[in-house]
Amino acid sequence: MLDILFKRGTVVAPSGRFRADVGVRDGRIALLGEDLGAEAGELVDAGGKYILPGAVDAHVHLSMISNGVPTADDYFTGTRAAACGGTTTVIDYAAQRKGQGILESVGARIDMARGQACVDYAFHCILTDLHGGALLDEFGAAAAAGITSFKCFTVYKREGLMMADGDLSRVLVAAARHGILTNVHAENADLLYSRVASFLADGKTSAWYHYLSRPEFVEAEADRRVVHWAKALGVPVYLVHLACAEGLEAVAEARGQGFPVYAETCPQYLAFDSEVYKRPDGANFVCSPPIKGAASREALWRGLRTGSVSTVATDHCPFTLAQKAVGHGNFVDIPNGCPGVETMYPYMLSAAQAGKISLEKAVEVCAANPARLFGLPTKGAVAPGLDADLVLYDPDAHVTVTQTLMHSSTDHTIWEGLSLTGYPERVYARGALVFDRGRFTGHAGHGVYCKRVPGGALR
Amino acid sequence: MLDILFKRGTVVAPSGRFRADVGVRDGRIALLGEDLGAEAGELVDAGGKYILPGAVDAHVHLSMISNGVPTADDYFTGTRAAACGGTTTVIDYAAQRKGQGILESVGARIDMARGQACVDYAFHCILTDLHGGALLDEFGAAAAAGITSFKCFTVYKREGLMMADGDLSRVLVAAARHGILTNVHAENADLLYSRVASFLADGKTSAWYHYLSRPEFVEAEADRRVVHWAKALGVPVYLVHLACAEGLEAVAEARGQGFPVYAETCPQYLAFDSEVYKRPDGANFVCSPPIKGAASREALWRGLRTGSVSTVATDHCPFTLAQKAVGHGNFVDIPNGCPGVETMYPYMLSAAQAGKISLEKAVEVCAANPARLFGLPTKGAVAPGLDADLVLYDPDAHVTVTQTLMHSSTDHTIWEGLSLTGYPERVYARGALVFDRGRFTGHAGHGVYCKRVPGGALR
Amino acid sequence: MLDILFKRGTVVAPSGRFRADVGVRDGRIALLGEDLGAEAGELVDAGGKYILPGAVDAHVHLSMISNGVPTADDYFTGTRAAACGGTTTVIDYAAQRKGQGILESVGARIDMARGQACVDYAFHCILTDLHGGALLDEFGAAAAAGITSFKCFTVYKREGLMMADGDLSRVLVAAARHGILTNVHAENADLLYSRVASFLADGKTSAWYHYLSRPEFVEAEADRRVVHWAKALGVPVYLVHLACAEGLEAVAEARGQGFPVYAETCPQYLAFDSEVYKRPDGANFVCSPPIKGAASREALWRGLRTGSVSTVATDHCPFTLAQKAVGHGNFVDIPNGCPGVETMYPYMLSAAQAGKISLEKAVEVCAANPARLFGLPTKGAVAPGLDADLVLYDPDAHVTVTQTLMHSSTDHTIWEGLSLTGYPERVYARGALVFDRGRFTGHAGHGVYCKRVPGGALR
Amino acid sequence: MLDILFKRGTVVAPSGRFRADVGVRDGRIALLGEDLGAEAGELVDAGGKYILPGAVDAHVHLSMISNGVPTADDYFTGTRAAACGGTTTVIDYAAQRKGQGILESVGARIDMARGQACVDYAFHCILTDLHGGALLDEFGAAAAAGITSFKCFTVYKREGLMMADGDLSRVLVAAARHGILTNVHAENADLLYSRVASFLADGKTSAWYHYLSRPEFVEAEADRRVVHWAKALGVPVYLVHLACAEGLEAVAEARGQGFPVYAETCPQYLAFDSEVYKRPDGANFVCSPPIKGAASREALWRGLRTGSVSTVATDHCPFTLAQKAVGHGNFVDIPNGCPGVETMYPYMLSAAQAGKISLEKAVEVCAANPARLFGLPTKGAVAPGLDADLVLYDPDAHVTVTQTLMHSSTDHTIWEGLSLTGYPERVYARGALVFDRGRFTGHAGHGVYCKRVPGGALR
Repeated sequence: MLDILFKRGTVVAPSGRFRADVGVRDGRIALLGEDLGAEAGELVDAGGKYILPGAVDAHVHLSMISNGVPTADDYFTGTRAAACGGTTTVIDYAAQRKGQGILESVGARIDMARGQACVDYAFHCILTDLHGGALLDEFGAAAAAGITSFKCFTVYKREGLMMADGDLSRVLVAAARHGILTNVHAENADLLYSRVASFLADGKTSAWYHYLSRPEFVEAEADRRVVHWAKALGVPVYLVHLACAEGLEAVAEARGQGFPVYAETCPQYLAFDSEVYKRPDGANFVCSPPIKGAASREALWRGLRTGSVSTVATDHCPFTLAQKAVGHGNFVDIPNGCPGVETMYPYMLSAAQAGKISLEKAVEVCAANPARLFGLPTKGAVAPGLDADLVLYDPDAHVTVTQTLMHSSTDHTIWEGLSLTGYPERVYARGALVFDRGRFTGHAGHGVYCKRVPGGALR
Repeated sequence: MLDILFKRGTVVAPSGRFRADVGVRDGRIALLGEDLGAEAGELVDAGGKYILPGAVDAHVHLSMISNGVPTADDYFTGTRAAACGGTTTVIDYAAQRKGQGILESVGARIDMARGQACVDYAFHCILTDLHGGALLDEFGAAAAAGITSFKCFTVYKREGLMMADGDLSRVLVAAARHGILTNVHAENADLLYSRVASFLADGKTSAWYHYLSRPEFVEAEADRRVVHWAKALGVPVYLVHLACAEGLEAVAEARGQGFPVYAETCPQYLAFDSEVYKRPDGANFVCSPPIKGAASREALWRGLRTGSVSTVATDHCPFTLAQKAVGHGNFVDIPNGCPGVETMYPYMLSAAQAGKISLEKAVEVCAANPARLFGLPTKGAVAPGLDADLVLYDPDAHVTVTQTLMHSSTDHTIWEGLSLTGYPERVYARGALVFDRGRFTGHAGHGVYCKRVPGGALR
Repeated sequence: MLDILFKRGTVVAPSGRFRADVGVRDGRIALLGEDLGAEAGELVDAGGKYILPGAVDAHVHLSMISNGVPTADDYFTGTRAAACGGTTTVIDYAAQRKGQGILESVGARIDMARGQACVDYAFHCILTDLHGGALLDEFGAAAAAGITSFKCFTVYKREGLMMADGDLSRVLVAAARHGILTNVHAENADLLYSRVASFLADGKTSAWYHYLSRPEFVEAEADRRVVHWAKALGVPVYLVHLACAEGLEAVAEARGQGFPVYAETCPQYLAFDSEVYKRPDGANFVCSPPIKGAASREALWRGLRTGSVSTVATDHCPFTLAQKAVGHGNFVDIPNGCPGVETMYPYMLSAAQAGKISLEKAVEVCAANPARLFGLPTKGAVAPGLDADLVLYDPDAHVTVTQTLMHSSTDHTIWEGLSLTGYPERVYARGALVFDRGRFTGHAGHGVYCKRVPGGALR
Repeated sequence: MLDILFKRGTVVAPSGRFRADVGVRDGRIALLGEDLGAEAGELVDAGGKYILPGAVDAHVHLSMISNGVPTADDYFTGTRAAACGGTTTVIDYAAQRKGQGILESVGARIDMARGQACVDYAFHCILTDLHGGALLDEFGAAAAAGITSFKCFTVYKREGLMMADGDLSRVLVAAARHGILTNVHAENADLLYSRVASFLADGKTSAWYHYLSRPEFVEAEADRRVVHWAKALGVPVYLVHLACAEGLEAVAEARGQGFPVYAETCPQYLAFDSEVYKRPDGANFVCSPPIKGAASREALWRGLRTGSVSTVATDHCPFTLAQKAVGHGNFVDIPNGCPGVETMYPYMLSAAQAGKISLEKAVEVCAANPARLFGLPTKGAVAPGLDADLVLYDPDAHVTVTQTLMHSSTDHTIWEGLSLTGYPERVYARGALVFDRGRFTGHAGHGVYCKRVPGGALR
């Protein structure tokens, strides 16, 4: 007997949609059929609704301390917000401390999230120290342990996170050998520090100068550089939160030549442009890389449509208004990051309904592609045997985003006032109802750690 | 009760694969499930096998007369061969005669195929005469009637098929307005005629000069030109049988800039290179555009991997050895075309197993993408409600292609001797078993005409 | 003894400028020196003035009949205007009539110009008929006779001038073999005819539709195509009157890859943009290719600065207001062409003084480069032994162009009202003063035919 | 009365050549004429010879100490070698020590060279320390003092020479404001250190690993990055010793878009390829960037032909065999640099005679362009009033380069055995004969320091 049976829904897959009943049993999708007569503990009328795979947000920062400032969301509140937005898997980061190993770093984070997370989770390991190369020897064990992606920074030198080009190239090559996909945050560290110093010296301290200290060309150079290494070394690479037209051009060019270069972008880069930094609440939009000009925004939409952007993720990293206000007098003191995990899927699906992309593409970039690239074979699709991570999506709902509707523990949202057509009606995480018509219905500890498989690729 | 139940197979979709039982009823896929206990008229053990959607070959030429020479295959034998290779839908061409209308042209072809075809079929309409522009007024009716793709030639001027750039641009714009996708065969007509004349004047008449009369740059120019029009006019375009690296570069570049430009290639361009034209049986490989050099072949594989090639189709257009031999003394007399409809899917899947692309990608380009682009929502996927066009694929079979195994009515195959890993074990067309372990088990008239929906796109 | 001695001028060469006295004897430059004490028939104080080589206008149409309408200038008035603008050599066109040979065609034109021209002249031969290939056999003789450049059209099909791609490719290859440089007028013939027909059918007949019938992308396609042939065939090519950004991009790209592709542009494409076609006198600006949008204009200036534009010429082809007015009701009836031979050098030099390019560059593109490319070793520079084709240029003159100052026999100028800084004070053609402070002082018959040398190149 | 009169020579300028007599007086070119009857202290028969401007080698390292090892040449022997190869001006480097100013740094070098140099000289100032930005305030004074070019390194971090991207961008912008051209040595510092460490750890210590530690992609990245900054900041930049195809591609692309980006290459990159590092004397070829593969070499020749390479210079930096031998056991200990100042002009002119480029181009890139770019208006051309830096070049001489013919104080040459067609017969530096049929005839102290003018450009 089924636990749940969705009747008369329309399932959306990257390659098309089909009318189906969907049956869930023991937290997994048991059945898809035309007109299922099977018995079920609960019957859900999905007529006129879409049944979508839960989104896989491959880029969140929970329980993180950034320059001494803790993010507003921990594993409970952050994954609660995710659940309420239809995101049923999140991939967070385990930053290696100097001297630490990979499994050790990730293990510590797993311990933090255990018992807290409302949806399933995994960790990219942020590499910061190769131990003179010895760390490369741990890559095989990492892959075997299900840690199939790393992240490197070309920035945050002063924070000890930056990996210089030589080490980055070694990571790229060694990771590829083990089927581990290297993620890179690409901006030019030295140039942005130089510009920051110059603006501060001139007393230019508003949020607008956050943008001007790392505008299009500062990111684009690093995007190009990282793509250059990947091409020259013949290995895959994944650029996180790509936000500028010229960086995307480098990705598209490399892909056109047949190189496995992947770009992720975020909803904030698709919905806003750099003018937001001139607003009185500009500080709230401060994230890195900053949101770029309108030309970049349009280029990113085009990239989604033709495949040069492979995924959408959030870089969810919320701070409270009070935390943000610390940087009122000086943009360098603004904690970097914005909330977004709850709004991503609704925003992308609403954009799809408005014709910016297809619904199929929204599902592809928010769910199927991150699941494939990051080695989560039971996620990202509505198919028998996969986890019953499902979103019952009402395409006719009209929701205006406002802070009181949100489930993050921060106290504002940059998405305030956003008018959406369509919204998740119910969300299920491995078969459990975690969001029901506006209310969070899950609980801490429902989420489990996902050990991942290596070799993620889209080819 | 189900008619057929496949147990324990692995279904492959473009975005991933999953273990499932698949149930068929009334010619449609009724059920996918983890461990279906449903009753069924027939139980098929799919353990260790893949359950794939039947391929959609968007480019075949059956019952065609080319320069007075009839193709070896008619609608019966051609679709019989398709069925035996796992291709359960073919899109053929209805060429407009001067003065004729679109519906009239397609109607005549539907009449020819009716009662003959073993698998489902549709027709692209080849436009040759715009009636001074009046034909554009019929585009809306064509779309409404399910004719959602046209084909235009930049070549075959002497055969009356060529459409000059001005008319082509009008077709592109008007077709896009109605959601009709324009296919273009792109080579430079004037240059190839000029080169042919020059070779003949020099007594250079072997099959090798077929290639040299229309080598890479002759095709590439036209590919670039067609892409140029599509970009400038802001409309989609679909390049059939793209066969050269530089043409693909133009497609990739346009896609990188966000333009909906699609390229199809064919197995003969992926498996062979121009050296075949030096073989004693070189004439058998004569098709247009000709097979290009090795650099183009490798570029096409790269294009498949990163998405600049959207589909694979066959350009199936077989002639008998006797027909081919007519051109023994002069390449211009060789009828253009090769068999391929039966080998496409096995070849692409075998290549996938060898690691050239993923199985997912093979299914995407051979089945899902042509179904989406050409408006066949019940084809190209294994999902409830869709036509039960299914291939039970044995990944461990080893087959060496030889003429006696083929089901086309021609008397040879350019694929002779090809060693394949994996092969269709059974093929079902709308639930009917049409191929069973080497034998054709279908019948003429099983295939029906597919009225298509407009607006096909991948975005 | 010298005939003329210019004292204390500044000579400008493409690679720099230097203070010098310049002595002329027997129509040639006899002497350049620091402070020449030599005796001279006439002493000219060149203090504060530039001594420039006379310009070589490689693109003029004199005594031409276009669709039955004769140009306003014949060899006398046209070269008179040239002389008065500092242009001391013009290269006109000898169009081959069907059946005619090359030497025959050029010979007839030489006969027309003899005794008429005020400055030296040569002819590109316009090829229109290869006599089935036999004409290629005359190329060697043509080169030997000093006819070292051909022109081909990708347009003017109805006028019998168009050369299709096959023949064009044969010309390119055969001409290169003899050191003959092929010039191409590149626009897409078929597309522009189609657009014209469509506008006329809609009653859109103003000069603006001349532009819209052959806008950027219509020219750009042909530019790209011609560059494609040259690259693929490994031969040089020279694009006349290139007027659009994307065409220039193709040239720059090819040059960046090392291909000897040369682009000429004209002052009208540098000074105006397509908005002129909306003016009441829009018809006067009608030429082909039409003047493009502002983005193309800026791209052409950039191309001059970095060398992707190799020459500036005029396409001088004036008609009277009455002749132009014939097309008042219908842009297709407007004779194509504008005056320009007199204003080119002053305009380019004035632009140089304003900083758009350097004076050196103006001299390079207006004089040195056309002389080198088209095989005129005694032209284009101020050096001993070369023809004393000299412009004494007053950089401080201020001239506002107006019809009464002009020396063409047409009755208007599109340059009316143009404010120039700097102007030729005197012009010498082979040592004879042909322009003296506003007055023409030459005479018909002073100009002689220039037999040219093959192998013109810039490398 | 003239001091010297060259009779019946052929002068070569970038834009052409002309037969002329050339008269010299007081160290300057006094006269050019067709058939000068002037009296002269010395008559030189230049019949059948070329009269060329002396080359301007914009890249030499004399009296330099590299990692404690002094170069073999000081200002006397280095400029003696230059003179004997037809190079009559050299631009060397004044490296700023931390804390020093620009004028101070250059002043110290002027003092070193004074009384030593045989030909004229100037200095680029190598910036290593911006004094927190304060140094930018000295740029105006530097330009006024005739220091119109700077050099920055993206490498040599450990040697204290590297300038990080932020400071580099500040230099680029501030230098451009004063008409100072910034030169950049572009390779990726971090990557090459990383590769070196990795090779050493593996015991890979031969000269071949010098190449492999900084192969094509390691240079290309930095070339691209520097071009990126110049484009983004809208300023000119000059890349020294560009040695790889992809870097050149970046330059060509930028130039095609209209950006004033200039590339210099060196004879060693045009004549050899990376295979030399496998030779027993591979250490002798060790320079940075290393000589690249054959594809890069061919790309550089193409770049010369179409203008994407603007200059040729030598990076002359010789060490003795004993000094080179120090690195026998370990490529990192090989002093970096090769002799070249004497062979550059003969090599380039011989290559021109062999048809690789034109003689005009050889003169342009070796003499005219460096003079223009680096603000030496009295150098680089044969014109009245300019310094009589002249090379009487015998195009029919045949010289095989061998160490005993060379005038550097090093004890070998990488050009050993090079067969040249054509060679300088005599060389004059400001009118003084410094090289006469194989013998050095100049003297220390003849050369003077050249104060330069700002604003050097080719546009």
